[in-house]
Amino acid sequence: MTGFRSSSFFGPSYRSFYSPPLHVASAEGAIITAEDGTEYLDAYNNVPVVGHSSAVVAAAVQAALARANTHTRYADAAVDAYADRLGEKLPGNLERLIFTCSGSEANDLALQLARNATGKTGVIVTEGAYHGTTTAIAAISPSLIGSDAVPDWVETVPVPDLTSPTFDADLAASVTQAAAELEKRGHGAAALIIDSAFTSDGILAGTSILIRGDSQQTAVAPTLTKTAAAIREAGGLCIADEVQAGFCRTGSWWAISALGVEPDLLTMGKPMANGLPLAGLAGRADIVDAFGAKQRYFNTFAASPATCAAGNAVLDELDRIGMPDRTVELEQELLGHLTQALGDSHLPVTVRTFGLMVGIDLSRTDRTGADIKQRMYESGVLVGTTGPGGNTLKLRPPLAISSDQLERIVDVLAGTLG
Amino acid sequence: MTGFRSSSFFGPSYRSFYSPPLHVASAEGAIITAEDGTEYLDAYNNVPVVGHSSAVVAAAVQAALARANTHTRYADAAVDAYADRLGEKLPGNLERLIFTCSGSEANDLALQLARNATGKTGVIVTEGAYHGTTTAIAAISPSLIGSDAVPDWVETVPVPDLTSPTFDADLAASVTQAAAELEKRGHGAAALIIDSAFTSDGILAGTSILIRGDSQQTAVAPTLTKTAAAIREAGGLCIADEVQAGFCRTGSWWAISALGVEPDLLTMGKPMANGLPLAGLAGRADIVDAFGAKQRYFNTFAASPATCAAGNAVLDELDRIGMPDRTVELEQELLGHLTQALGDSHLPVTVRTFGLMVGIDLSRTDRTGADIKQRMYESGVLVGTTGPGGNTLKLRPPLAISSDQLERIVDVLAGTLG
Repeated sequence: MTGFRSSSFFGPSYRSFYSPPLHVASAEGAIITAEDGTEYLDAYNNVPVVGHSSAVVAAAVQAALARANTHTRYADAAVDAYADRLGEKLPGNLERLIFTCSGSEANDLALQLARNATGKTGVIVTEGAYHGTTTAIAAISPSLIGSDAVPDWVETVPVPDLTSPTFDADLAASVTQAAAELEKRGHGAAALIIDSAFTSDGILAGTSILIRGDSQQTAVAPTLTKTAAAIREAGGLCIADEVQAGFCRTGSWWAISALGVEPDLLTMGKPMANGLPLAGLAGRADIVDAFGAKQRYFNTFAASPATCAAGNAVLDELDRIGMPDRTVELEQELLGHLTQALGDSHLPVTVRTFGLMVGIDLSRTDRTGADIKQRMYESGVLVGTTGPGGNTLKLRPPLAISSDQLERIVDVLAGTLG
Repeated sequence: MTGFRSSSFFGPSYRSFYSPPLHVASAEGAIITAEDGTEYLDAYNNVPVVGHSSAVVAAAVQAALARANTHTRYADAAVDAYADRLGEKLPGNLERLIFTCSGSEANDLALQLARNATGKTGVIVTEGAYHGTTTAIAAISPSLIGSDAVPDWVETVPVPDLTSPTFDADLAASVTQAAAELEKRGHGAAALIIDSAFTSDGILAGTSILIRGDSQQTAVAPTLTKTAAAIREAGGLCIADEVQAGFCRTGSWWAISALGVEPDLLTMGKPMANGLPLAGLAGRADIVDAFGAKQRYFNTFAASPATCAAGNAVLDELDRIGMPDRTVELEQELLGHLTQALGDSHLPVTVRTFGLMVGIDLSRTDRTGADIKQRMYESGVLVGTTGPGGNTLKLRPPLAISSDQLERIVDVLAGTLG
């Protein structure tokens, strides 16, 4: 055994989220049960968006697999109906969908479309960006490969402090400067690609509340209209990576909509089929059709009847549990619990919430993200970390989580912070 | 409606295999039933390897989705058991697996591993190569982007005539020359990536029989030992792309094994989970572990319990129907039918079979691949085309096809060729 798996075929590329590793026996709703019987409350996994082991999803997939599971070079009415239904959720200026298997593939394809549309090759991303794992997308993911390894066709921009009144103007100025730099190097800026919740930069979007400290401060989500104008002024496209932020996570269908921007391309993935591999790209018709006229794009497994059946069941379930409005209710409940529980502590914790994309920033405290994550794990609550030094706890639970479960997450967090 | 789909969200990137498009109602075994009730015998789809709508696969996936469908940063005994079982099928020198969602992702990752292992950046592929759709892998797929669009870090080599006694030596010489060219350009050759059945070059592997013409000629699959030695001599890796050729298709588990080569990396995909998105890379432990030590590789959807359950059911079914030995029996039956049926015609057709990867080369006849494919479609048999000018019919049926169905394919082919 070379890693944490019982099979020696899994090498050190595979890394456990937790120590000791969580050996999964079963999962339901927002609960994962380990082989030793321990129940973990899942405050981290956005993929099983309508709950782990959804019976609705399982039945839909079984039925599709038993009927026909061909691919998109044949026509299938169920797949077309899913595309229409998903398409209705898109920002109004996006009239095309191309499906992929993963968010990485969707971002990689977005890059190909942007280069084709603009004739430029450079890309601007944020300093802490993570967009995926293909050769091209790893290259625009400094949080994966390290900022030193970023190639010369990539420029990074810092994300301003969320409480800054000049957030958008500052980001726009950085984008303009980065585009000029790429132009100077002969690449030009084909696109600005941003995670619409700045997730791996530390969740620098939405509402920011400094729970304790010299003063209580609250900032509200800045728009990104100046930033979008800046990349377009430089001849590039604005690409919203909604692989993490999309699908009702932030309180509306797409996070970028709340930021006042109609993107040229939008990518989506993780929660789309509750864990089956389905992802995709939505785009302006002119951009997508220009690429399609030049080159076919065929992805064998993407948007098969089985994965679209899962996708359709997810849309059913999101409707049933009242999304995206319910996200906003849950966010308010969570903020209430956090303010009360952490207000009693003496720690200057900054809480940032963009729907149920939640960052608990510990950087002003003497706690580390890694330590609190580990101790919460030992107390039966699963969270992650993000941002500089990993000192922002990342909470991103299934949207099917209950009010009681949210409260319990805060109880354990408060108890752990001490 | 912009393409052949009823949803306007599908743009012109989506292209139908057939005209008029096949609107799928249901599918079972090797039969696809259209919405108008027409039954098509599927001689083309390798993805539903154990048959369309396998009840075994559907039940396994349903059970996994109802239990737990987490990802590889948690441990799951069912996923580990699948990795062990698949791992036992690998060439002996390959001791690691990394799972992906698609063959494109697997090839893209193979490229990243090869570059990391060799410190070189160039790649050698065959002239008609197709390896996938990511930015990096489209760049090494001249059959997708056009040979003129191949970047300067890619060199292409011609595939020799299959009947040439110097097949391997000629290919090796081309590889040596291409590697020298890449070295001159400052890239070096990180890898030779070959589809082990040269599928998109026209299926230039296995047994070749000129059915009619001046003389009957038979050639037997050449080995590729000199070719593998040539890339290694140049400091590059030998990567076998078995996304199409692997999984018992060619009469053994991996086509490259029949060609006498132990590859450094091997990629797999299409038939792996009978249509659910599951693909992967097998590699030498030193190569995979060196990459893993440097960088994590986490692919959210890859090797989830649900897709591994499908993969495991495929292994069950392949065992049950006697694979890979049964492939060889079916190949012999097919060759017998073809020799008899086409021997009565007056057409110089060359048939190349590598198990049930079958090329019917019409380039010495006045028939075109596109026309025969279309007329076979109108007669209820689905085939594809490949190779220069698309004049090689490509037959690659589900391995669960019956002897009777194979015979019917040949009957329709013979009747269509006239």
